[in-house]
Amino acid sequence: MEDFFITADWVLPITSAPIERGGVIVRAGVIEAIGTVEALRESSGGVDGSLREIDLGRAALMPGLVNTHAHLELTGLRGFLEETDFFAWIRKLTDTKYERLDADDILLASRWGVAEATRAGVTTIGDICDFGVSVRALADGGLRGVVFQEVFGPDPAQAAPSIAGLEAKLAQLELVDAPRLAVGVSPHAPYTVSPELFQLVTALALESRLPMAIHTAESRAELDFVRHGKGPFADYLASREIEVLGRDCSTVEWLDNLGVLAAQPLLVHAVYCDRDDLRRVADSGSKIAHCPKANAKLRHGVAPWREMRESVVVVGLGSDGVICNNSLDLFEEARFAALMDRARIVDTSSPDPEVPDAAAILRMMTLGGAEALGLAERVGSLDPGKAADLCAVDLSTAAAGPVHDVETAVVWSASARDVVLTVVDGEILWDGERYARWDLDVLGRSAGELPEKLRRRIEGRDAARREIPKASEAVAQNAKTQML
Amino acid sequence: MEDFFITADWVLPITSAPIERGGVIVRAGVIEAIGTVEALRESSGGVDGSLREIDLGRAALMPGLVNTHAHLELTGLRGFLEETDFFAWIRKLTDTKYERLDADDILLASRWGVAEATRAGVTTIGDICDFGVSVRALADGGLRGVVFQEVFGPDPAQAAPSIAGLEAKLAQLELVDAPRLAVGVSPHAPYTVSPELFQLVTALALESRLPMAIHTAESRAELDFVRHGKGPFADYLASREIEVLGRDCSTVEWLDNLGVLAAQPLLVHAVYCDRDDLRRVADSGSKIAHCPKANAKLRHGVAPWREMRESVVVVGLGSDGVICNNSLDLFEEARFAALMDRARIVDTSSPDPEVPDAAAILRMMTLGGAEALGLAERVGSLDPGKAADLCAVDLSTAAAGPVHDVETAVVWSASARDVVLTVVDGEILWDGERYARWDLDVLGRSAGELPEKLRRRIEGRDAARREIPKASEAVAQNAKTQML
Repeated sequence: MEDFFITADWVLPITSAPIERGGVIVRAGVIEAIGTVEALRESSGGVDGSLREIDLGRAALMPGLVNTHAHLELTGLRGFLEETDFFAWIRKLTDTKYERLDADDILLASRWGVAEATRAGVTTIGDICDFGVSVRALADGGLRGVVFQEVFGPDPAQAAPSIAGLEAKLAQLELVDAPRLAVGVSPHAPYTVSPELFQLVTALALESRLPMAIHTAESRAELDFVRHGKGPFADYLASREIEVLGRDCSTVEWLDNLGVLAAQPLLVHAVYCDRDDLRRVADSGSKIAHCPKANAKLRHGVAPWREMRESVVVVGLGSDGVICNNSLDLFEEARFAALMDRARIVDTSSPDPEVPDAAAILRMMTLGGAEALGLAERVGSLDPGKAADLCAVDLSTAAAGPVHDVETAVVWSASARDVVLTVVDGEILWDGERYARWDLDVLGRSAGELPEKLRRRIEGRDAARREIPKASEAVAQNAKTQML
Repeated sequence: MEDFFITADWVLPITSAPIERGGVIVRAGVIEAIGTVEALRESSGGVDGSLREIDLGRAALMPGLVNTHAHLELTGLRGFLEETDFFAWIRKLTDTKYERLDADDILLASRWGVAEATRAGVTTIGDICDFGVSVRALADGGLRGVVFQEVFGPDPAQAAPSIAGLEAKLAQLELVDAPRLAVGVSPHAPYTVSPELFQLVTALALESRLPMAIHTAESRAELDFVRHGKGPFADYLASREIEVLGRDCSTVEWLDNLGVLAAQPLLVHAVYCDRDDLRRVADSGSKIAHCPKANAKLRHGVAPWREMRESVVVVGLGSDGVICNNSLDLFEEARFAALMDRARIVDTSSPDPEVPDAAAILRMMTLGGAEALGLAERVGSLDPGKAADLCAVDLSTAAAGPVHDVETAVVWSASARDVVLTVVDGEILWDGERYARWDLDVLGRSAGELPEKLRRRIEGRDAARREIPKASEAVAQNAKTQML
C-alpha cells in the first residue's frame, strides 16, 4: 500500500474549521497529519520523499461520506417500483425480489450499487441485506460498513424458526472475508416482525454485541398498525390468520416497552416521532437514519429532523435503497434534508438560529453517519489516527463556482458526479476517472439487460433461475416467515 | 449550419410517448422529422447523405430544458448570500450588487451562468436582468429566451422617472443583436413597485406587446405588506417616508384589481396563493414560474403546485437565481418539486391520482416552461416544424441505470452533469466535452477570483470600479427609485 500526501485548495476536517490550501498525510492507511500544506511541509517528520503527492487543485478534500441506510441488493430495481401506494409498493417489491430475480441479478445489482456509491464519494454504508449477497459485493468493492441481516416473521408461532434462520444466515455472513465490514441484524419493521421475534433478535444482538437496524415509524400505515391494529398491514395479517393488537402507543414507545431500545438500534426513517419518542431514542442511546427523499417519494411525510437535533439524537443521513429515492447522491440528499427542514417552518421574517448551517449539514453526511453506525472512533472526520477514508469534490465546475465559502459550495452546489477521489483505508477506489474494482462498462451492459429479463419473466416467457447464493440458503425460510 | 440525424436509445418528444431507438432529423435548424430510427431510415425523403449522423447510444434525447426564472447577472454571488432572514438577505443583495460589483464582474457572472445553463441542458431561459448585461451574455452564448428588464420604484412620486428609465433601458436592450431573445419587462415585486408604477409598466407592456414577469406572492413578509401594510418591508418604506397601505387582499387579487393581470404576466413563485388566486391566474391567462428550491431555501414555504395543476394554470419550472437555490440543475429542481408535492400530502394508504407521473414532470421542465414564456409554438417539444432545441442525458452511468422506464430514469435519477448534448436552432453548443462559446477554464479562473475581489472591497482595501455597461446607464436611476 502506498503512502500519500494529498493536497487540495480546501480541506474539510469536519471536527474543525475548513483549511485553505490544506493537505492530509496518509501512512499505512491511517491519517497521520492534517493541516495547511505550508505547515505540513515545514514540520519535521511530516512530508518526505516516501509519500506520493497528489494535488487535487480546486477541490474540497473531506472525510468519505457515510450512507447509513441502503439496500444494495435491490439496486437493479431502481425505477421499477414507482407505485405511489406504500402497501402496493411493498407487495410488488416482495413479489419481484423473491419470484423474479435470480442469484446473478442480486449480485450484479449489489456490485452496481457499490460502484455507484464509490463514485459518489461514499466510503461507509449501513446496508440492509436479505439474501446475504451485498456483503460479498461490499467486500469485493472495498467499502466499509455494517451489513444488517434482515429478518421477517409477523407470526409469533414462527419466531423460533425465524431466529434459527437468522442465525444460520449470520454464520454464512461471518464466513465472508471482509475486514472492513461488521455484521448486524435487522428485524425489518413492526408490521413484519412479531413482538416475540423482536425480543429474540434483541436478546441475540445484546448477547453477541451485534448492531441492529429497524425500519421504524416510517409510514402512516405503520402508525395505524401499531397504535390501532388497523389499516392495510393489519388487514393483510388478519387474512393470514395472524392476530393483530393495537398497542395504543407510537412505534418507538412500543419498541421501548418491548425492551428493543436496549440494543441501541439504528432507527431508520423515524417520520412519525414526537418529542416523547425522541427523548426515548436519545435516552436509550439509539440512533436515527434520516432518509428524507425516500420518505417524501413514498408519501410518508417529513421526518422531524429539527426536533431530532433539539433532542440531541444522533442522526446520520441515508439514501435508503435506490428503489425508494432512485439515487445514492448524498449531496442531493443532504440538500433535500436541509430544504425540507426549512420548508417545514415558514419564514417568520427573523433569522432562525435553528436552521442548520452548511457545517452542520456536512457533519450529518460524515461524522453523524459514523456515529449512527457506531464507527465514529474509526471514521467520519479527518483526525490523526482515524482511518484514511476520504473523498474529494471538484469545485471548479460551472455548477459549483465561484467559491465564496467552501462549506456552502459543497453542501448547496456539489453533486455526487463531482467526486474526483474516493479512498478507504488509504486505498484509492475511485480517482475521478478509473474505478478500481470492476469494469463498469461490462457491469453496465449486464445491468442494462435486467429490465428486459424482468419483462420476459413477468410475461411468463422466461423463468428466474431460483438458485439462491449459498450465503442465504435460509432465504427459503422466508417463504413461510416473511409477511409482505 | 450542418444538418443532422441524431439518434439515441430513447427519444422523448414530450407531446407523445417515448420512442425506443429513435431519432430526430434536423434541417436548417428546424426539426424535420422524428420517429424510430428504422422508420426514419425507411421513409422517402428522410435520412440521406446530406445529414451528419450522431448516435448518442444509451442516452435520452429530448427537448432542451426551459428555465423560466433566473437572474444570470448575479451568478457570481452564488453562495455569498446565505442569510436565512429574507429582508436581511435582500438588503445584502442590493448593497452588494450596486456597491461591490463592477461591469466586468456582472458580464463575467452572466457568461458563467449561461455556460452553466448550457452544460445543464437548458436551451431557453426567462432571465430577469437589472444591468442590461445578461442579454449580451445570452446572445453571445447562443441561448434562447426572454430577458425581462427589471424596474423598481416604491415611491409613487417617482413612477414617471422610473418608467422613463425603464424605456431607456429597453431601447438599449433592443440594440443588442440577439435573434433568439425577446425583451420583456419586470416590475420587481409589490414591495418595491408602487401601484402607479405597476400600472404604467402594464400599459407599456400591453401597448408594446412585451412579456412581463413579476415576483409575486413569494414570502410571508410580502403577504403582510400587501394585506396589512405591515412587516419589515412596510417599516422600511415608512422609514423612507413612503406611504404604505394595507390592501386587505392577497397579492394576486391586488394585481388583478390594479389591472396588471391583463398583461398576462409570468408570476414568479406564487407561494401564497389560494384557490381564488389561482382561478384569477388561470382566467387571466397569466402564468406561473415554480421555483421550489429557492422557496424552501429562503424559508418562504411550499408553493401549491398541486392546486395550480387542478386550477389548470400554466406552470413552468424555474431555478431562480443561483443566489437563491445555488444551482441551475433543472433535473434536481424537478425532483424537488415532485418530492415537495408528495411530502405536502401524507400517504393515505391509497393510490393518489393527483401525484404527477414522470411524464407530467418532464412536461413542466420543457413544454410547460415554453408555454409560461409564450414560446410554445417554437420550442418545448420535439415536433416537426419546431426549432431544433434539444438536449440529451446519458443514462449509462452508475447513477442512472438500469433503465426500466426512461421517463422515470430521467426524472428521478439524471443530473445536469449527465447532459451530453445541448442544441439551439440546430447549433451544437455543448457536445458533452466541449463548450462552443467561451474557454471555460479562462472563465472559471476569472470567476474564481471574484470572492477575493469582493472580500477586498468589503474590507475597504479595494473599490469596485463603478463604470456600468453602456446598455444600462440608466441604472444610476436605481439609486433613487430602487427600494431594497
